[in-house]
Amino acid sequence: MSWFYAFDLFGVAVFAITGALMAGRKSMDLFGVLVIAIITALGGGTLRDVILGNHPVSWIRNDVYILVATLAAVGTVLWVRLTRPINETGLLVADAFGLAVFTVIGTQVALNYGVPVSAAVIMGVMTGVAGGVMRDIICNEIPLIFHKEIYATACIIGSFTYIGLQALPLHEDVITAICIALVLAIRLAAIRWHLALPRFHLLDRNRSDQ
Amino acid sequence: MSWFYAFDLFGVAVFAITGALMAGRKSMDLFGVLVIAIITALGGGTLRDVILGNHPVSWIRNDVYILVATLAAVGTVLWVRLTRPINETGLLVADAFGLAVFTVIGTQVALNYGVPVSAAVIMGVMTGVAGGVMRDIICNEIPLIFHKEIYATACIIGSFTYIGLQALPLHEDVITAICIALVLAIRLAAIRWHLALPRFHLLDRNRSDQ
Amino acid sequence: MSWFYAFDLFGVAVFAITGALMAGRKSMDLFGVLVIAIITALGGGTLRDVILGNHPVSWIRNDVYILVATLAAVGTVLWVRLTRPINETGLLVADAFGLAVFTVIGTQVALNYGVPVSAAVIMGVMTGVAGGVMRDIICNEIPLIFHKEIYATACIIGSFTYIGLQALPLHEDVITAICIALVLAIRLAAIRWHLALPRFHLLDRNRSDQ
Repeated sequence: MSWFYAFDLFGVAVFAITGALMAGRKSMDLFGVLVIAIITALGGGTLRDVILGNHPVSWIRNDVYILVATLAAVGTVLWVRLTRPINETGLLVADAFGLAVFTVIGTQVALNYGVPVSAAVIMGVMTGVAGGVMRDIICNEIPLIFHKEIYATACIIGSFTYIGLQALPLHEDVITAICIALVLAIRLAAIRWHLALPRFHLLDRNRSDQ
Repeated sequence: MSWFYAFDLFGVAVFAITGALMAGRKSMDLFGVLVIAIITALGGGTLRDVILGNHPVSWIRNDVYILVATLAAVGTVLWVRLTRPINETGLLVADAFGLAVFTVIGTQVALNYGVPVSAAVIMGVMTGVAGGVMRDIICNEIPLIFHKEIYATACIIGSFTYIGLQALPLHEDVITAICIALVLAIRLAAIRWHLALPRFHLLDRNRSDQ
Repeated sequence: MSWFYAFDLFGVAVFAITGALMAGRKSMDLFGVLVIAIITALGGGTLRDVILGNHPVSWIRNDVYILVATLAAVGTVLWVRLTRPINETGLLVADAFGLAVFTVIGTQVALNYGVPVSAAVIMGVMTGVAGGVMRDIICNEIPLIFHKEIYATACIIGSFTYIGLQALPLHEDVITAICIALVLAIRLAAIRWHLALPRFHLLDRNRSDQ
């Protein structure tokens, strides 16, 4: 098992935990918790593979992914039932790490398909954030990533950097490590200093539809 | 026409009716009623086929599916316009039957692709419930199946049973009949005695994001 | 560059603008504006291609689509920042034109796959309207097209007409032009005289689920 595969599974577990916690805030039943956890963890990669036509998708090829997401969801419910406190800071850091790993994976997969740069970046961002967007849509929330501190922007920068570094004579592992560190650093800085993109406020007197 | 194909079309019609009724509760126009009916009836199978890479999807291969869903939607609108009462119990039983049939179909299709057991069960559940989830998301509701009495759990049990029975020297029709009866029985028992999975309540003081 | 390709890019730009404006009404950040714009512009065609198994999808094959959608989104934000008024009537007409073009493209692509008429019409309508539906779902609104004046109905008529005219000895360009004009005319008439489909109101005393 390579270190990168271990990182991947860690990302799956963390994303599943954030999904299970959101389902808990919506008072879903245990099936709902499991579904939201799996979709949050594997939805981004599945969407990427379906759009690329990359079959079979990861969790069909390898059932460890579903197993890890399921265990993470069950573990989360047990943890909260035992009234253990949730370490918010630790979870945010873990989520940032998972985001970094997923972004690199998504960009890699897309480049292997020989897609243009714009599509490879979109695939990287999609792999990182689409699971969370699906989680928020199913839970009837406007997706957090369109509002809160810099999140997807870290993916965009990481994905472009990954593509750019392919031009240099670096080992793949080195490029991967640099990009993971970069996304992680940007995201942690954004959390620490509440960095956010400017918002686009459109008043209703500018309405364009009825 | 085999008996199983007739069951399949019956399931499509019933799911289309539940979609049309939901659209009516949201006061949609006739196009909206038709779209929600078709998505409820065929969305689960379409999602399964797209994730599996199983092309062409059922309603492209065979246009009877769209025809049946359309007729069911139009029939529902006419029925309500004529102020006929809706037989709630009958509809719930019919829906449970459609759920059972769709679960078996989804598991069968996935097994034909040689996927692992975890993915086959997910495909069975997805075929049974994803259309209803799409209906609820488009209608801006948190999907019912994550809240109400046992529903998807019946699919999970039915799908595992279907896979397990493949190991026995039974005729495919017998296995299919057993699994349909099992899902139906669990679902009807859940409705009758209001059986529900425990819920996962997470209070806001346990919040993990901002 | 053919005139039809120019029309296609024009439709992408217009749909991206409507997406950016909706994101602005939800006070999203700049990343959110960009995502909603791209999904509104390219979501319908992507869904169609994924369901047909038509890989690679348009914006992966040709990165001009992403570029045009991005420029349209950025341009919209700048325009509103400079407090220029939005020409509502112009935007509605442009949107109707984009709808007409996308409907014809979707029907064409589906016919090239040899699908039945019902599926070809669904693909035409899907290409025209699904991007807007995704925009509304992500922004937590019940999709506008299920409520407001005739919109998708124009696509349905245009798509059936396109298919029917294939039987006549007309040049493809002529058929395309006729269908674009037809969809545009129906949609503009609907806007001008507030034509709408009848709605299906279902009172709660008719409820069929719990």
